[in-house]
Amino acid sequence: MKRLLIDMDEVIADTTGGMVAWYKEKFGGDIDYAKMLEGQSLVKGFPAEHQAIIRQQFFEPGFFRNLPVMDDSVAVVEELNKKYEVFIVSAATEFPNSLTEKYYWLMEHFPFFHWQQLVLCGVKSMIEADIMIDDHVRHLKNFRGKPWLFTAPHNLNEEGFERIDGWKDAAMKLL
Amino acid sequence: MKRLLIDMDEVIADTTGGMVAWYKEKFGGDIDYAKMLEGQSLVKGFPAEHQAIIRQQFFEPGFFRNLPVMDDSVAVVEELNKKYEVFIVSAATEFPNSLTEKYYWLMEHFPFFHWQQLVLCGVKSMIEADIMIDDHVRHLKNFRGKPWLFTAPHNLNEEGFERIDGWKDAAMKLL
Repeated sequence: MKRLLIDMDEVIADTTGGMVAWYKEKFGGDIDYAKMLEGQSLVKGFPAEHQAIIRQQFFEPGFFRNLPVMDDSVAVVEELNKKYEVFIVSAATEFPNSLTEKYYWLMEHFPFFHWQQLVLCGVKSMIEADIMIDDHVRHLKNFRGKPWLFTAPHNLNEEGFERIDGWKDAAMKLL
Repeated sequence: MKRLLIDMDEVIADTTGGMVAWYKEKFGGDIDYAKMLEGQSLVKGFPAEHQAIIRQQFFEPGFFRNLPVMDDSVAVVEELNKKYEVFIVSAATEFPNSLTEKYYWLMEHFPFFHWQQLVLCGVKSMIEADIMIDDHVRHLKNFRGKPWLFTAPHNLNEEGFERIDGWKDAAMKLL
């Protein structure tokens, strides 16, 4: 059984969607997705005067716990979990409050996972696997298995990696 | 630089010591270290009628956050951190509340670590490294690098692995 690493933020958790929803409710302002792309970070899509508060949101209790789930991810990941040895691997230790919250989020939305399948880390370079799905090139570029770049607003200009465009596409490519 | 994985519970965190101190304060009873050894688990060292509440303690907020630090671990691990690429790797996802607490515990007592050096997982089999220090044979036995069994009350009868008996011994063997 091949080992498959699946990222959380922007892959199974809709981090951009959650941040945009929070921002619109609080400030009502406009989001510039082109700047998100240009700056290779979701933070850059928000007005300059609010970027510090957007960054702070990642540290706030409840932010990660309440993120929406990516479209189609639950059904497709459940099937992948039958075919592969799946680990959900999140570079999360930068945000201490997220650690416990990510466990409960995963178990609520993807209840077929065993606690042994969650990995919370800072870098992914020491994890050995056959396939990695991630929205960040920094995690994919030194990976020795097959890397798949999961399309996100901040990575549309990245080249050099085969892409997965949403979970229906993942099903076609990996199931 | 060789990659060195160091476990938390019973290796840098005195989990047995913390549990015994909590138990003695609450129940005042006696601990049977021989039974801990026989049962290969610290839980077995406590009176049978209290083993369920001992197990429950692992899930309680604050338990992991307040554990004592193992003797000599801070100074020796700080030196190891200069010589090796160190990751602190804890099979912790069984205990959701421990995840955020382990981050804060590590950063309080071992402030020289970067957040990128902490890994919280359920199994360690997918992590590639040169050396692993752990008190559990289940993590060491399929490791492809050099395994070191860190002596703990529950593993005194284990054979087949070279041992580290405390952090002064670790300094002699690894520095």
